[in-house]
Amino acid sequence: MKQIIPFAHQLFIDTLQQGDVVVDATLGNGHDSLMLSQLVGENGHVYSFDIQQEAIDQSQQMFNDHHVKQITPILRGHEHVYEELNKRSVNEVDGAIFNLGFLPGSDQSITTNANTTIEAIEGILKLLKPERYIVIVIYPGHETGEIEKNELLEYLATKPAKEVDIAKYQMVNRSPKAPFVVALYKK
Amino acid sequence: MKQIIPFAHQLFIDTLQQGDVVVDATLGNGHDSLMLSQLVGENGHVYSFDIQQEAIDQSQQMFNDHHVKQITPILRGHEHVYEELNKRSVNEVDGAIFNLGFLPGSDQSITTNANTTIEAIEGILKLLKPERYIVIVIYPGHETGEIEKNELLEYLATKPAKEVDIAKYQMVNRSPKAPFVVALYKK
Repeated sequence: MKQIIPFAHQLFIDTLQQGDVVVDATLGNGHDSLMLSQLVGENGHVYSFDIQQEAIDQSQQMFNDHHVKQITPILRGHEHVYEELNKRSVNEVDGAIFNLGFLPGSDQSITTNANTTIEAIEGILKLLKPERYIVIVIYPGHETGEIEKNELLEYLATKPAKEVDIAKYQMVNRSPKAPFVVALYKK
Repeated sequence: MKQIIPFAHQLFIDTLQQGDVVVDATLGNGHDSLMLSQLVGENGHVYSFDIQQEAIDQSQQMFNDHHVKQITPILRGHEHVYEELNKRSVNEVDGAIFNLGFLPGSDQSITTNANTTIEAIEGILKLLKPERYIVIVIYPGHETGEIEKNELLEYLATKPAKEVDIAKYQMVNRSPKAPFVVALYKK
């Protein structure tokens, strides 16, 4: 059975094509961006947001090691995604991923939060092509993650079903603090 | 994006093969059994449980209309699945489905309930081959369905993750009374 991260990735494997443009809203250690860059290929592009220089530097090193040039890290909060992509004349995207919480192995006080995450989702929904996904991996295991999870699910419950399908995929016989995935599919 | 029933069916499409033996724990209107019979083919078999003669008669008529012979309806509660299959010398199965609640268009006071559903799950887990699924569609939209859902999720949360993976797939921006799916994958 698909675990959380493989389930999240499968949605992109099923929908993304070479040449597509995607957003990694939470660059972090860079692994999602690298995965996405392979799906969209050399003619595609990944725009990756992070507010920590440390994340950008480490990830860029990894991208260089993999000889991947189609990832643009952007040192800014993902709530500015619409503005930043507009600036680069990117008017539509084929997918987006969020891996919420903090940068693994780094300062755990620097985390995503529901307000800016929601702003980022709204921005991406304006850019997202129909029949494409925004995939969010949610980590309720730390205190701010639990708050973010609740506010986010409250917001997502209000999205009109005629505009977007939203599914939650969660393991049942794990700790309630275990990560889970929410996927938005634009109609 | 996959809706609830298509998600449930996909797990069987991905795993069942011609010649497999499966259980429909809640025959009802017979549509799940018919779908399963097509996946397992003429050399496979579907054992389908229902406590209502009405469900058996209506479904058998539909199976006859479709010239399907590989379905055996059994007029008994699914809590007896282990005993009934043993009686027929069936010692292992390749999958099972539950569509909980009441028979559509019939007496809504006759519903599944958590006690017997759990007994049925335990029986099937003893028969189920590794790397195969028990898929349960849960309907919390009526009062007894809500109770059954809570008791069932409480039970499922206790199943050891080293023996079985259990995932819940649910639409987020729908009524909390909307049906959802839980899938058990035997390791």
